[in-house]
Amino acid sequence: MNHPSVSLHYAIMRYLKCSEVGLSLFFVFFLTTWAPGPASCEGDRPPNFVIIFADDLGYGDLGCYGHPTLRTPNLDRMAAEGMRFTDFYSAAPVCTPSRAALMTGRLPVRSGMCSDTRRVLFPDSAGGIPESEVTLAEGLKQKGYTTGCVGKWHLGHLPQFLPTRNGFDFYFGIPYSNDMDHLDSGPNGEARSLNPKVENFNVPLMRNEEIIQRPADQTHLTQRYTEEAIGFIKKNKEKPFFLYMPHTFPHIPLFASEDFLGKSPRGLYGDAVEEVDWSVGQVLDTLKNEGLAENTLVFFTSDNGPWLIMKETGGSAGLLRDGKGSTWEGGMREPGIAWWPGKVKGGELCRGMSSTMDLYTTCLTIAGAEIPTDRVIDGVDMSPLLFQTGPSNRDEYFYYRGQTLYAVRKGPFKAHYITRPAYGRGEAEPHDPPILYHLGIDPSESIEMNDRFPEVLKEIEKAKKAHLETVEEVESQLEKRIEP
Amino acid sequence: MNHPSVSLHYAIMRYLKCSEVGLSLFFVFFLTTWAPGPASCEGDRPPNFVIIFADDLGYGDLGCYGHPTLRTPNLDRMAAEGMRFTDFYSAAPVCTPSRAALMTGRLPVRSGMCSDTRRVLFPDSAGGIPESEVTLAEGLKQKGYTTGCVGKWHLGHLPQFLPTRNGFDFYFGIPYSNDMDHLDSGPNGEARSLNPKVENFNVPLMRNEEIIQRPADQTHLTQRYTEEAIGFIKKNKEKPFFLYMPHTFPHIPLFASEDFLGKSPRGLYGDAVEEVDWSVGQVLDTLKNEGLAENTLVFFTSDNGPWLIMKETGGSAGLLRDGKGSTWEGGMREPGIAWWPGKVKGGELCRGMSSTMDLYTTCLTIAGAEIPTDRVIDGVDMSPLLFQTGPSNRDEYFYYRGQTLYAVRKGPFKAHYITRPAYGRGEAEPHDPPILYHLGIDPSESIEMNDRFPEVLKEIEKAKKAHLETVEEVESQLEKRIEP
Repeated sequence: MNHPSVSLHYAIMRYLKCSEVGLSLFFVFFLTTWAPGPASCEGDRPPNFVIIFADDLGYGDLGCYGHPTLRTPNLDRMAAEGMRFTDFYSAAPVCTPSRAALMTGRLPVRSGMCSDTRRVLFPDSAGGIPESEVTLAEGLKQKGYTTGCVGKWHLGHLPQFLPTRNGFDFYFGIPYSNDMDHLDSGPNGEARSLNPKVENFNVPLMRNEEIIQRPADQTHLTQRYTEEAIGFIKKNKEKPFFLYMPHTFPHIPLFASEDFLGKSPRGLYGDAVEEVDWSVGQVLDTLKNEGLAENTLVFFTSDNGPWLIMKETGGSAGLLRDGKGSTWEGGMREPGIAWWPGKVKGGELCRGMSSTMDLYTTCLTIAGAEIPTDRVIDGVDMSPLLFQTGPSNRDEYFYYRGQTLYAVRKGPFKAHYITRPAYGRGEAEPHDPPILYHLGIDPSESIEMNDRFPEVLKEIEKAKKAHLETVEEVESQLEKRIEP
Repeated sequence: MNHPSVSLHYAIMRYLKCSEVGLSLFFVFFLTTWAPGPASCEGDRPPNFVIIFADDLGYGDLGCYGHPTLRTPNLDRMAAEGMRFTDFYSAAPVCTPSRAALMTGRLPVRSGMCSDTRRVLFPDSAGGIPESEVTLAEGLKQKGYTTGCVGKWHLGHLPQFLPTRNGFDFYFGIPYSNDMDHLDSGPNGEARSLNPKVENFNVPLMRNEEIIQRPADQTHLTQRYTEEAIGFIKKNKEKPFFLYMPHTFPHIPLFASEDFLGKSPRGLYGDAVEEVDWSVGQVLDTLKNEGLAENTLVFFTSDNGPWLIMKETGGSAGLLRDGKGSTWEGGMREPGIAWWPGKVKGGELCRGMSSTMDLYTTCLTIAGAEIPTDRVIDGVDMSPLLFQTGPSNRDEYFYYRGQTLYAVRKGPFKAHYITRPAYGRGEAEPHDPPILYHLGIDPSESIEMNDRFPEVLKEIEKAKKAHLETVEEVESQLEKRIEP
């Protein structure tokens, strides 16, 4: 929906700020041709982008998504001033592949950043994001963006895979998950005890390519990320910038600073999420205070669903089924909030389908940068949703677990070819014919609809076949290990 | 939290409208003594009250409570302009007792409006709300209110139990549930088939004490309720009024008018809820257009949780456990939205505990009416929550199923003495010691906390004992049947 009165209001507000333009001429121009969209009165300067990525946050974990005890006033305000998405997806139900998809605009099966046997990168991994991939940061560099990554990378910790070698001018954060490098690690390096004591972990904290602290003081990690993010924004405000801020929390082990520890009604999980929420508020306030709000698109989401087997230290998928590690909706559908005062209308709820991969295509499109044409890009431009100019460019979604396609969504219908509950909850089960659900009538995937919509599976089968024809086998980066 | 700048803003807005008051004097008075609360510049005229009650709507069924496909823009806007409650309870997990509690401010076990053997009133019931009860309508009549009830009553269909004999000047609606008087009824008169065809039901539609249509045309019921409600407001706008609007839907069988049928992505259930949402918007718009918004408290909630065994024609409790008929949170915790422009601050989320019985006490208190002192009243004044002047007056909640106390909440802790899943899903199971949950850390009641908080059960046991000492045995109204 296009709201002319609101558009006009913003147009006039913007007009009043544009002193370098011939006023009368500009006013006539604006009133006759202005439409919602990424056009900017700052001449050729494209907007800034800030992508804030939580870790293991569930669909039901924010106040504005219905959680009763987790207090997220800053994200709720971001949604009230911006657009909240009901059907926003990550491209994988776990960390590394999900992040790879966001950075490349491609399903992880195309970049090799997934595996059926080793679900993410570990400290002994020899692989990482291939040099041939064009990251979002690299894409934006074409248009002169300054690029920063503050937070958990998890696309390879060896030098050639670090953010600084993949399009980022600046990096501050930890290279993999905060439960890795555990002093009592399991066979894959994952934590066996979740006692959140700093001394139990040996995770390095890096600035650019140097380790500056080891073990990282996880208690103050969200605070330090926030300081670095604010510093990056202030330092680079004169030119277009891209800030990618993948938070370490609420991935376990959970930590929170003194200001948040023991404060949330939701317990330690709430403490960690509430500190991330605070951090989001700090970033938005900085953008406002620096006069950048109307020229910055901020998007908040999470890498995958809640880690349900962790019980109270894992999150909630709300009414969605299952969580992290599964291709049920709870594993891959995420909170998604867009904020761009004057461009993205406030208080809107968007039900169009979209994904982290679409952020890639959308940011490059808005920036006027080139999108690679020598490979398959899975992201689509979500501008029609953001600016309410039309329906979503996306009508299909492909749910992979590792390298295997588990489910396909087309419109409101979703067919599960294989189901498998979240990690630790059960084994894979193939379905022939696939189980069909209607996510509109039944967002919780509880009522099989095969008999009711007999024609739909054929359509989905066709979409699946067409999709699989575009997928070529590539070497998995996640299965390579450093020689001992 | 009290926000002086917002308060001042409202104060000035109100000031500009009060031409009958000496302006200068009033301005000085207002700036020095004004505080949020029910004081009104209309002199002694107390505010209007509108209570809108959905039927079987679940905690997770509104957009503003996180539902992804149910479109409730009017209720979402009501929440954005008003206050949304996270911990608002009905007093029973089924219809008749829940409504009795709202109308009397008392647990149904005190009025006899519940039973362990017959859960609600049926067309063959001889009982109803006892004459000795002081309904909210009767209480407000003390202060000269005009009172109207538009919708499903379900507190007795024999003449002496009708709204018009219980404090309401006006009644329009159906006397019991819309699945009763079914042409193929079960042993209690309930529907066996849920095929939503008008001709399958014989439910009477009444105006005051007359049946004006039988069977009621359920397809247009929400529309007719809305017309009658708007008519009531317009007709009575010169004097304080109380409008009680208990909708028939989304109780099954589900109906929706041509404007809504087949339109919702959530299916027929969504059609019915979206029409109720539309109706709420019509009522709020009428209040605004008639200049009554700033002198009217509107509260929206539901009688009990979603009817889960009905699958897609039942609602969702979101992340809460179980639904209608159970004393798990999903059975009794409801969406709750307060709206009173200029008095209840907009866009607020309230986490204080409150209940339908508190609406009774709150409305009477704000109106300056007397609250009965010759009996136990379970409702407390929720003004501190509405006007953000302090914490909730309620720290305990008693969850009854029929005449039996199943669970007790104290602060964030809830102890289940007996559990029983929603109707049709299993039998009652007593627990000694009771199972303890922490609703802050674990709102889904999935993690037993008995070992972790060993002292809490003693406190709850004390509260339970003190409560039970106030409960006297009374005759059940629900077990009386009309002699054949």
